Amino acid sequence: MQSIHKTLVLLPLSKPPSNMSSRMYAWFVNVVLLSMHLVSASDSDPLQDYCIPSPELSSLFPSSCKNSSLVTVDDFVFSGIKSPGDSMKTGFSSIPVSSSTFPGLNTLGMSFVRADFEPGGINVPHYHPRATEVAFVLEGTIYSGFVDSRNRVFAKVLEKGEVMVFPRGLLHFQMNVGDKTATILGSFNSQNPGLVKIPSAVFGSDIKEEVLEKAFGLSWKELAKLRKKLAPTG
Amino acid sequence: MQSIHKTLVLLPLSKPPSNMSSRMYAWFVNVVLLSMHLVSASDSDPLQDYCIPSPELSSLFPSSCKNSSLVTVDDFVFSGIKSPGDSMKTGFSSIPVSSSTFPGLNTLGMSFVRADFEPGGINVPHYHPRATEVAFVLEGTIYSGFVDSRNRVFAKVLEKGEVMVFPRGLLHFQMNVGDKTATILGSFNSQNPGLVKIPSAVFGSDIKEEVLEKAFGLSWKELAKLRKKLAPTG
Amino acid sequence: MQSIHKTLVLLPLSKPPSNMSSRMYAWFVNVVLLSMHLVSASDSDPLQDYCIPSPELSSLFPSSCKNSSLVTVDDFVFSGIKSPGDSMKTGFSSIPVSSSTFPGLNTLGMSFVRADFEPGGINVPHYHPRATEVAFVLEGTIYSGFVDSRNRVFAKVLEKGEVMVFPRGLLHFQMNVGDKTATILGSFNSQNPGLVKIPSAVFGSDIKEEVLEKAFGLSWKELAKLRKKLAPTG
Amino acid sequence: MQSIHKTLVLLPLSKPPSNMSSRMYAWFVNVVLLSMHLVSASDSDPLQDYCIPSPELSSLFPSSCKNSSLVTVDDFVFSGIKSPGDSMKTGFSSIPVSSSTFPGLNTLGMSFVRADFEPGGINVPHYHPRATEVAFVLEGTIYSGFVDSRNRVFAKVLEKGEVMVFPRGLLHFQMNVGDKTATILGSFNSQNPGLVKIPSAVFGSDIKEEVLEKAFGLSWKELAKLRKKLAPTG
Amino acid sequence: MQSIHKTLVLLPLSKPPSNMSSRMYAWFVNVVLLSMHLVSASDSDPLQDYCIPSPELSSLFPSSCKNSSLVTVDDFVFSGIKSPGDSMKTGFSSIPVSSSTFPGLNTLGMSFVRADFEPGGINVPHYHPRATEVAFVLEGTIYSGFVDSRNRVFAKVLEKGEVMVFPRGLLHFQMNVGDKTATILGSFNSQNPGLVKIPSAVFGSDIKEEVLEKAFGLSWKELAKLRKKLAPTG
Amino acid sequence: MQSIHKTLVLLPLSKPPSNMSSRMYAWFVNVVLLSMHLVSASDSDPLQDYCIPSPELSSLFPSSCKNSSLVTVDDFVFSGIKSPGDSMKTGFSSIPVSSSTFPGLNTLGMSFVRADFEPGGINVPHYHPRATEVAFVLEGTIYSGFVDSRNRVFAKVLEKGEVMVFPRGLLHFQMNVGDKTATILGSFNSQNPGLVKIPSAVFGSDIKEEVLEKAFGLSWKELAKLRKKLAPTG
Repeated sequence: MQSIHKTLVLLPLSKPPSNMSSRMYAWFVNVVLLSMHLVSASDSDPLQDYCIPSPELSSLFPSSCKNSSLVTVDDFVFSGIKSPGDSMKTGFSSIPVSSSTFPGLNTLGMSFVRADFEPGGINVPHYHPRATEVAFVLEGTIYSGFVDSRNRVFAKVLEKGEVMVFPRGLLHFQMNVGDKTATILGSFNSQNPGLVKIPSAVFGSDIKEEVLEKAFGLSWKELAKLRKKLAPTG
Repeated sequence: MQSIHKTLVLLPLSKPPSNMSSRMYAWFVNVVLLSMHLVSASDSDPLQDYCIPSPELSSLFPSSCKNSSLVTVDDFVFSGIKSPGDSMKTGFSSIPVSSSTFPGLNTLGMSFVRADFEPGGINVPHYHPRATEVAFVLEGTIYSGFVDSRNRVFAKVLEKGEVMVFPRGLLHFQMNVGDKTATILGSFNSQNPGLVKIPSAVFGSDIKEEVLEKAFGLSWKELAKLRKKLAPTG
Repeated sequence: MQSIHKTLVLLPLSKPPSNMSSRMYAWFVNVVLLSMHLVSASDSDPLQDYCIPSPELSSLFPSSCKNSSLVTVDDFVFSGIKSPGDSMKTGFSSIPVSSSTFPGLNTLGMSFVRADFEPGGINVPHYHPRATEVAFVLEGTIYSGFVDSRNRVFAKVLEKGEVMVFPRGLLHFQMNVGDKTATILGSFNSQNPGLVKIPSAVFGSDIKEEVLEKAFGLSWKELAKLRKKLAPTG
Repeated sequence: MQSIHKTLVLLPLSKPPSNMSSRMYAWFVNVVLLSMHLVSASDSDPLQDYCIPSPELSSLFPSSCKNSSLVTVDDFVFSGIKSPGDSMKTGFSSIPVSSSTFPGLNTLGMSFVRADFEPGGINVPHYHPRATEVAFVLEGTIYSGFVDSRNRVFAKVLEKGEVMVFPRGLLHFQMNVGDKTATILGSFNSQNPGLVKIPSAVFGSDIKEEVLEKAFGLSWKELAKLRKKLAPTG
Repeated sequence: MQSIHKTLVLLPLSKPPSNMSSRMYAWFVNVVLLSMHLVSASDSDPLQDYCIPSPELSSLFPSSCKNSSLVTVDDFVFSGIKSPGDSMKTGFSSIPVSSSTFPGLNTLGMSFVRADFEPGGINVPHYHPRATEVAFVLEGTIYSGFVDSRNRVFAKVLEKGEVMVFPRGLLHFQMNVGDKTATILGSFNSQNPGLVKIPSAVFGSDIKEEVLEKAFGLSWKELAKLRKKLAPTG
Repeated sequence: MQSIHKTLVLLPLSKPPSNMSSRMYAWFVNVVLLSMHLVSASDSDPLQDYCIPSPELSSLFPSSCKNSSLVTVDDFVFSGIKSPGDSMKTGFSSIPVSSSTFPGLNTLGMSFVRADFEPGGINVPHYHPRATEVAFVLEGTIYSGFVDSRNRVFAKVLEKGEVMVFPRGLLHFQMNVGDKTATILGSFNSQNPGLVKIPSAVFGSDIKEEVLEKAFGLSWKELAKLRKKLAPTG
């Protein structure tokens, strides 16, 4: 027990036991950490009450759950969305909370997001490949809408306390049309809904220029300009 | 009957034709309305962008969707939880919003609830047979917890902005332990999660007395007292 | 109306009885046809061997199946993709085949598409909200790729006989980089995968100008130009 | 026709109104009864507590549920497998109970079967396309087995009280190897698991002779003999 | 520790190599055994014929399957419910058989239970968070019922050979109302349905007193009495 | 052993450290390789964009995914069905491509097969326990059909470019009725659909003779002849 206690305490600096050579330890950790990263379970009915991935071991044994005797109430509580995210300079910030940031959600089929908007701030057209979203307006006045697969737009100004549903996989967007900060709380029916932001996925990624020029009817120059604006920085 | 008749009249051409006798019309409506009430679809992947049940016809043709040309943005927006529910006299009120009250949720696998608590108000131990719940504290200070299937309690006082997850089907409860009104917003990964409140389901229903006496070790008198308190009123 | 009436007449005994007035009949058909359009079943395990929607009645009773004695082998065979689609003038044509065009697919969780490309023809960046796609190159040389949700592009030139998989909901695109016509056969694990083409969904729909200007960093003039090109014609 | 008419009469107000001609009524019933037969819902999570199809209307409105006020405990109880099935002359009889014979199972994802064997009686190699089976030996001694998809046989003699699981879709068989009657109770995780009996599906159906001769290496004569034995009688 | 070590020794070559110190070995095994306990797979369609977890390794590599060459028919047969469970002194005993006790059920979406009742014995109000149950009366006369989410009770006396279905997640109960021992065989459509017994989950767990007093209208004294009776013993 | 060792060496730092004895290494690899072989994930909605199993580690840690920085476009492209399979001597060859041969399919719910037929060549009656199949005729003229669970055959001659759907779990077969080679491309809605060929599963496996004699009405001699023909060849 003692040695276990020590080992766990030392993680993420987890010192190998004295008689395990550091090189051997490095081999073990490196092989695993460089080769995997995610559990491949799925958003279907859970097979147990809950399954909290062990923070120390989930990268090594991804589909395992913490022993229930080690689970505490804090595994089921998340306190990280009390305040807006910090990249508010662009007029918009969001804190997506999926099973990777809130492990208590694992196998339970849900996740959520907090989004804050300065006046005029926008959440660019995007979609979640693996979930429906229900968005609640916590504060402010938000122009909110989605596009269905026949290119029809359903959009409206929502007031505080109103709720809009964005069907699974459909493009949607939001803009603060009020004169003070606005906040939205979105919920998803997947523990990892995914997020594809159209401007950066299309113009900020490395899709071959010819494809984009033809798809959008852009000249080489126009495309270059768009790409410059929307390319990832840093 | 009258109101149904009126509703149907609002449809284009929906007036029963002059030579359809009112008795025949009544027969048609009655057979259907007395015999069905709910769509039996299921919370799996949707088969289309969305499927808004036709309010006039969903009781007759439950698994049908409105023609998309009749769908508007208002089908996807819900404005009914801006204020607390009105049965606040008992210190607790809730407004559950499922696909039956917000048809836009149909086939999309999500629903939600607003719950308001006066100081000391409780949401009695209950569970949702068909969904996980993610509960956000909108206002106030809430003692919130659940019981796993080994009878272990996970409970904690949550502040405004904190979030707790209640795994699918597990018993949970909440109590306002602050000194002002508290509000919670719960989201579910089912369009109709269901709700079983333990006090009324166990002692307020007609479970045979002998079963309850033996199950809880109660005398006939003790049980009668409990039942009187917890029976449905009027 | 006429054609619907004719279709119904083809059913055994389906002729409206002489004493059902044509106005009454019209009422019945109109209420239904104006109010519904799609079955809301879902891509989960089937509950029977197969369920061919009755072509005459599926708009009225959407989740019903033809009586099995009326089902023939032709319900399970599709002959409409022997040749390319006819809108080949733009360098690209596709024939999507879902359960609405090939009713035999209903409840079986699959569908498919034939896509033809002239030299240089492209399939613009798009995604399917409800399915993974496996694309087979039947003829030609196709540059084919997708963007993951971290904006990383996976793209490659495929030769005849090669196969590429596009994960569910991710953006993908194709371009004929050979000097003769190319053809692709795509299969989906949904009976109705949906299709969102980015250029027309974003710039050819009615998303508020301000949202797009901010999202893509476009001037009013640049956006107007893009919209003009990508707006639906006719 | 008569019996349907009578059944409908039992509903409140369900008598066809006097001025609906019998020909019109026949038209309505015929179109529906000849054109549909089965609900296309699926074995996924239920969307409500239960959904008892209305016996009178389920063929007309297949995915609808009885109004809950008409549901009684008898909808959830099945009494038809107290005794063996009556075709015991061949040494084997079975009573499959799916949602079509026990409507209370509808949407709940389960069904079951009672099988009785005289000494030496067999349940021929068969499989259930849509379910796993758990088989309990109620009486007797049963040789029971299945073949996996690598053609490996897992078989064993089971005594009263023992349980065997047959994985979804795999071929299995049973034989009473004791000297008295044996009985098995099978449970399935689908409301309609389906049943394909190999001898009759292969040799008792109309698969083209040439296919079977080549597949099994049989002469025309040998095949004819097999077909004669295994063809459906009557 | 010893027993684990012995088990591992039974594997070919599984003896820890001489130069792996026992302390290092202990570290490896302990970290894993204290940190995980359950596979997080789910009751959806299986991805292979079967997946028998390796008894020695499933706690280390929870979502792995035994090599099929090591699988035998005994992996698919369960012999542990031939006789009643041994805690019959309270008038009721049950033997739940899920994938953790019968590994052959893993990934196959089913499990079962044997329940025995002395005359007057009860199965207290309980529910299974993750499954529908189909209950067969093997012997005796059982009063059996469930409560739907509108608090309506559906209950009836069942005779030997009768079957009752308890919809997923709903409260149900049973009592032997005959004068001899009764036995029930329940089947579930989940490999791990879960079990929440109301008396012990509500009054035998550590739910805050104030919550229960308010929820059930109990005095401090009445609650203390109930808790004393229903608390877990030893 | 050697090849595994070599593969591992290709990983960064993956060389077993000098002070890990080869016996210890062998122990580690052997325990794992002899005891597991397959991931038990399932065909439900994916939880991430994709999950490429690490070829080196998937047998050790089956439900893990490669680190996304190691994923390349080649993980999503399959080039192995450009030509027919090589066992064409029997008039039929097939190349099934599931997630085990094309790891990019993992968690994405699809797989496919190429089948080639010489004139008169047949694909014997078989079924896929876990998938629907959509079969495209790439070349030639194919008699193609399936048997439903009422033993009704749906079969037809298909020309190049035609498509047939085989519902999940139903028996189907194909025969080249043209005078040149024919080719089919089948797609499945499972990453591992499974394949049960009736002749070899029934007569080429070790099902007890008595079961087969009774099931098919065969004499001992007739059965022996069939078995000899259809037994697996060394």
